[in-house]
Amino acid sequence: MLRAEILAVGSELLTPLRSDTNALYLTGQLLQAGVDVGVRVTVADDPRLLESAFRSALGRADIVIATGGLGPTEDDLTREAAAAALGRGIRRDPAILEALRARFERYGRVMAPVNEKQADLIEGAVMLPNPLGSACGQRVEVDGRMLFLLPGPPHEMEPMFLQQVLPLVHERAQGALLRTRVLRIASMSESDVEQVAAPIYKTFTNPRTTILGAAGQVELHLTAEGPSIEAVSERLDALARALREALPGRIYSEDGGELPEVVAGLLRERGLTLALAESCTGGLLAERLTSVPGASAFLERGYVTYSNRSKVELLGVDPAVLDSAGAVSAEAAAAMAAGARRAAGADVGVAITGIAGPDGGTPEKPVGLVFIAIQGRAGDRVRRVHFLGGRDRVRFQASQAALEMMRRGLLGLDAW
Amino acid sequence: MLRAEILAVGSELLTPLRSDTNALYLTGQLLQAGVDVGVRVTVADDPRLLESAFRSALGRADIVIATGGLGPTEDDLTREAAAAALGRGIRRDPAILEALRARFERYGRVMAPVNEKQADLIEGAVMLPNPLGSACGQRVEVDGRMLFLLPGPPHEMEPMFLQQVLPLVHERAQGALLRTRVLRIASMSESDVEQVAAPIYKTFTNPRTTILGAAGQVELHLTAEGPSIEAVSERLDALARALREALPGRIYSEDGGELPEVVAGLLRERGLTLALAESCTGGLLAERLTSVPGASAFLERGYVTYSNRSKVELLGVDPAVLDSAGAVSAEAAAAMAAGARRAAGADVGVAITGIAGPDGGTPEKPVGLVFIAIQGRAGDRVRRVHFLGGRDRVRFQASQAALEMMRRGLLGLDAW
Repeated sequence: MLRAEILAVGSELLTPLRSDTNALYLTGQLLQAGVDVGVRVTVADDPRLLESAFRSALGRADIVIATGGLGPTEDDLTREAAAAALGRGIRRDPAILEALRARFERYGRVMAPVNEKQADLIEGAVMLPNPLGSACGQRVEVDGRMLFLLPGPPHEMEPMFLQQVLPLVHERAQGALLRTRVLRIASMSESDVEQVAAPIYKTFTNPRTTILGAAGQVELHLTAEGPSIEAVSERLDALARALREALPGRIYSEDGGELPEVVAGLLRERGLTLALAESCTGGLLAERLTSVPGASAFLERGYVTYSNRSKVELLGVDPAVLDSAGAVSAEAAAAMAAGARRAAGADVGVAITGIAGPDGGTPEKPVGLVFIAIQGRAGDRVRRVHFLGGRDRVRFQASQAALEMMRRGLLGLDAW
Repeated sequence: MLRAEILAVGSELLTPLRSDTNALYLTGQLLQAGVDVGVRVTVADDPRLLESAFRSALGRADIVIATGGLGPTEDDLTREAAAAALGRGIRRDPAILEALRARFERYGRVMAPVNEKQADLIEGAVMLPNPLGSACGQRVEVDGRMLFLLPGPPHEMEPMFLQQVLPLVHERAQGALLRTRVLRIASMSESDVEQVAAPIYKTFTNPRTTILGAAGQVELHLTAEGPSIEAVSERLDALARALREALPGRIYSEDGGELPEVVAGLLRERGLTLALAESCTGGLLAERLTSVPGASAFLERGYVTYSNRSKVELLGVDPAVLDSAGAVSAEAAAAMAAGARRAAGADVGVAITGIAGPDGGTPEKPVGLVFIAIQGRAGDRVRRVHFLGGRDRVRFQASQAALEMMRRGLLGLDAW
């Protein structure tokens, strides 16, 4: 498989506020063309750093694409640095110079002398015209590797990439296609998934698999290569099937869908209505479910019952339960879910109560302790979980666990 | 000036969907410490590429910080690659291994054999404890350069950086200080803020000012340089004062505080209780307010009244209002806010009702139309706003506008 490296040039990209949108764009385009992006580099406008970055890139990639640093100012050093890394000279191209002058005249302006350096071409380079700006691009072939220099502004770079770079990349990649499928799992730790999945995916070299743990879920990224979409899909299907069998009922989506969408889809499919009662998550579960368009089809209402009084008044929780077991207890969670369901006349009631922190924990009920309950037509279940991390993480994981409980309940899968 | 290079490790970061939030965070922190970030690299989980990236970085930077690739799986190759680039070996540390086992036991789990490699330490490295995860960090000094390996999850990496890396960086940087102050404004467009602020901040060369528009707010980033914290603070104070005078009552925070924290602080300060009623935002306003620790001090309850029935039953909204004016109307919003306040016996009631889209819009009531109402001890106000953008953006902006209305009401500022 061909390997590409992307260089984004410009000190302004090395501030906390900016990220390299060009690099993301190119990554996506190259992946689709069957080219793997192994390294992405952002480099300041510094001749020594730039030359070193070009040298490293040319030493390890088949295709190197640099964006930015082709302007007329003293900070624009991409041409010089690339030439130095290649050990080649630079010459001023009379045809480009003429075209530059004509461009300025067209806009009724006189070209400043600084602009002349935009006509500098690396020895042996092919000029890539830029119809939308004054910085032309360059293409250099060396020992079977291709180096492209493209301007930084996305609206100039993108059409140049599509028209003048991508066709050559396709030719070089010779039809190979790359596709990634993402399998998501919400109820297991990264190492537990790895333990089960690794012996399977390691028997496949195509697709390659990456495992990725995030808050409240684990993702398996399967990337396959092949001559056609059908061939690639077949390879992905084969591995996905094997993983599905090894992790029965655990993979909640294979098409990029997030857990709230999956649960919303199940509720809608079955024509069930839902009522929510949230304490420590403070509306996060409702917010995530209503972020799915059309949530009004299933969500009758949600309660954010932060105070004990609201739990009693709105959900009919017995004050004696709150006194004896406490607001953070299996009993309270079950009563909240049942109460929300009853008050709303909904098919399913779901409740979350816990201690999100940072304060409010005790030795018996530490920060991160959460009870989740489901009542009604997705089964009656209560689960006690101890989540790690700060307030946001505890809350997110609690909402995620509630969604996974709903999914399992709706599908009639075992509790876990 | 010291030069740093940041390496983000992980094939999952080289997909078009992800960007390196860690690298942005570290860039910001290092700049504040007076350290220049010359190169930022994202590298796939590939031993050859990783080793090459470490070698390049160690060849050109004084401080190298790598994040990610310290997990227990076969894809986690940062330790090995860094050791290879340094020409050093790796040994399994018995103390770390013991601590790992104890960590697993604490959570009632047995450590899988794969996890053992998380106890591997580069020869001569100092272990950096990770209180929030199983991947510890490492620090290696070589020829006056410092290499840090930190875990990838931001909530683990950030405190480790602040406590175990930054003090050493400060020590090494000795001298020039850079500080950024962020002024936030929630009720104006970027161009309106620019119109007023630019003539002021352009008269200052130190601090430099950047203006940044985000969903529902505008930020002014003031960055000053000087020999001491006092000198830098003085420069920042002078510009901030001038901007505050030009934008009276508009700047809601100058210390990095987000709008929910500011509103929560005001409610707590004044000892007021709050009840919320949300339709189109589906719990987002409650979620954002309860993301602030200690929200139970003011939030009595929240209602997610998605159905008309729940608006009538829970908030006592007159069905005739829903029939005549509609659920998305000033009348409905005011009745919801008053009803939530009354039912909860709270000091302040806030309601949001609108059309978040993508469906449900009409010529009279298009997607993005939102009504926000406040009732009680922060004044009685109703506001009609038409937000642009997709569902998430409309919902976020609606919650943001509600928070800004609450802030202005609580401070007795004019409606806008």
